[in-house]
Amino acid sequence: MTTGGTDSTTAARAALSRLFEPSDTVGLGLVSVVGPIDALRIARGEIHAGHDVRAQLHDLLGMPDDRRDHLQEGLSRWAPRLGDLAPERDLATLERLTGRLVTPESSEWPAALHDLQTSAPLCLWVRGNHEIPNLGRLAAVVGSRDSTNYGSSVTADMASGLASRGYSVVSGGAYGIDAQAHRAALATTDDGAFPATVALLACGVDRYYPAGNEELLRTVARSGLLISEVPPGSSPTRWRFLQRNRLIAALSAVTVVVEARWRSGALNTAHHAAGLGRPVGAVPGSVHSANSAGCHRLLRDGTAVCVTDAADVAELAGPLGEPPLGDRAREDAEPARDQDGLTIPDLLVLDGLPVRAFTTVDKLASVAGLSIREVLRGLARLELAGLAHRTSVGWRRQKE
Amino acid sequence: MTTGGTDSTTAARAALSRLFEPSDTVGLGLVSVVGPIDALRIARGEIHAGHDVRAQLHDLLGMPDDRRDHLQEGLSRWAPRLGDLAPERDLATLERLTGRLVTPESSEWPAALHDLQTSAPLCLWVRGNHEIPNLGRLAAVVGSRDSTNYGSSVTADMASGLASRGYSVVSGGAYGIDAQAHRAALATTDDGAFPATVALLACGVDRYYPAGNEELLRTVARSGLLISEVPPGSSPTRWRFLQRNRLIAALSAVTVVVEARWRSGALNTAHHAAGLGRPVGAVPGSVHSANSAGCHRLLRDGTAVCVTDAADVAELAGPLGEPPLGDRAREDAEPARDQDGLTIPDLLVLDGLPVRAFTTVDKLASVAGLSIREVLRGLARLELAGLAHRTSVGWRRQKE
Repeated sequence: MTTGGTDSTTAARAALSRLFEPSDTVGLGLVSVVGPIDALRIARGEIHAGHDVRAQLHDLLGMPDDRRDHLQEGLSRWAPRLGDLAPERDLATLERLTGRLVTPESSEWPAALHDLQTSAPLCLWVRGNHEIPNLGRLAAVVGSRDSTNYGSSVTADMASGLASRGYSVVSGGAYGIDAQAHRAALATTDDGAFPATVALLACGVDRYYPAGNEELLRTVARSGLLISEVPPGSSPTRWRFLQRNRLIAALSAVTVVVEARWRSGALNTAHHAAGLGRPVGAVPGSVHSANSAGCHRLLRDGTAVCVTDAADVAELAGPLGEPPLGDRAREDAEPARDQDGLTIPDLLVLDGLPVRAFTTVDKLASVAGLSIREVLRGLARLELAGLAHRTSVGWRRQKE
Repeated sequence: MTTGGTDSTTAARAALSRLFEPSDTVGLGLVSVVGPIDALRIARGEIHAGHDVRAQLHDLLGMPDDRRDHLQEGLSRWAPRLGDLAPERDLATLERLTGRLVTPESSEWPAALHDLQTSAPLCLWVRGNHEIPNLGRLAAVVGSRDSTNYGSSVTADMASGLASRGYSVVSGGAYGIDAQAHRAALATTDDGAFPATVALLACGVDRYYPAGNEELLRTVARSGLLISEVPPGSSPTRWRFLQRNRLIAALSAVTVVVEARWRSGALNTAHHAAGLGRPVGAVPGSVHSANSAGCHRLLRDGTAVCVTDAADVAELAGPLGEPPLGDRAREDAEPARDQDGLTIPDLLVLDGLPVRAFTTVDKLASVAGLSIREVLRGLARLELAGLAHRTSVGWRRQKE
């Protein structure tokens, strides 16, 4: 259950998880080529990546005609954060919270994450007294933050029914459907044989976000599991929310969307799950409810199957402990797209822009994990899009 | 538009439609082998079916090892009704209602009915001032008799939206969803370019069933179309309702179920449509509403696509006037089954049993269109099932 004494591989992964944003393909590619320890040394400039390493990385990442120097872009992106690296401190913080770092080298590493291939996380920061259950025992129940009474009631029945069938209910710790799913699961099982619920966070596991869910998330940490791929102290950003969704989808045998608007983060989770060949369920509702429009969209386009209760969901998940249905949807899976038509660096810059204060390009580079050049380009595009505002004292987010 | 002077083929089909119950495979097979005029003469005993005819009929109907004499069974079944034959009277009744008999020989015969193959109707008794629109211009909206406010509201929006897009709204003239669909369509279009709505009846077009819909059905006869395959004066029976459903499904480019319980006649229509390769839509609703359980069942088992408004339905129907999607579901179509596990003759007998009076085996044979032997067998099985009650003065239906 514990990682034992922190070895250098574990420490390197802990450090890299602060250096790289989730799904940083260059960083993750570098780790897959040279391993975490040398990847950290290359990122720190302690050693240089030879021609061999660059060629392998290029094979891994590049298009045939691609002349971009991916590694150089990565190094520029990581540089502003090198000063913040303190993996021992982060691991000590985790230990104070009686947490542990689960890495691909640990026996507890969920095999299901291999399905993420090149975007598998570097490590998982985990709080809780249980091991992470096998894929077949995890069922995700997600949905809108602004849930209706109908959505809350269906979520409670479903999560409770799943927990009483022996499934750990996975969700994102947000207001609305997520919180209701966690609560109902916690209220249903207390025998401690398995974690009633698992919250996947977009911030560090030492933070309770949103603030109104602090009490709930503390309970999840005690009776269930709190999991994040970003280190303690990390704040939740739009990019991290979107990437967190892929972890919910990958860890769970089935993902159910209870309520979602036509455009909703929950649909992003559903598409991640479908892309991984995991079954997706959607709860039907009134055609007059905007909060069900996203569910009906999933049903109509064939991404999701209609589910009305826990029995339906359990049927989709397959027998407890069994692997899921497999590659059902892999072929026609679309890659996840951001929701506003912005590029990934733009989103990272946007997330870093304060609303009520001003910031500098240097600070933005460190906060967003981007090179100075990427930040400048991103700010230019955001300014054009009316999303960023430049003043004589720095940049801030354009008020909407 | 009119049938002109009644020719002998038309008169023969009119007569046979009283002799045969809908989808009487032996009767329809006989017509396909010898034509309607000789089929009527054989049924009347005026001529005998030769060995050739019997062999062709056997090829059409029988299993390889089948030794049943299908024609003889048919003749016994039709015999009790021969005395009732009066096609000229029936056609005169129709004419008084300014109706017309549409037969496969008429230019107005809907090509879509060929998809019913051996169960295509003998003829259609039609009232109304419009021609029957092409398949691509007909959209069926069906559902429970005991609809909720939600179902009524969605039906009104959908039927109105379809009518304003130029579709004729097809339904079954029943209470609840059907009536609402007819009403909303009638209220939407009054330019007379096409029939706003088409009601397919399980009884004769001179009868207004259910009685509470008389005013509505009279309006449909004036502004839309009333269609039945059974002649004037025929009463609606369970068998005729089930068979009527196949006509709704076959005539319409798309069939939408707005509300249906877990077991509902509307599901029968949906399965007919799917079996014919026609697209089927189902409207989602609250998982707490028993009136949506049948719709969710159709969504879950893949029979239906989720539709939330008229635009969704129109998309399923395809461009106006175009043929439908085709054989999408033909392969995995199940044959329609009756709902209570009874055989077809049993159902016919059950339909003929009065609840408050008593009847004789002879009368039942005539009412049900079965031979004496089939009626006796059916009564025995119904008695065993607790559905029929034998007394010293005759048979009646067992009170539930």
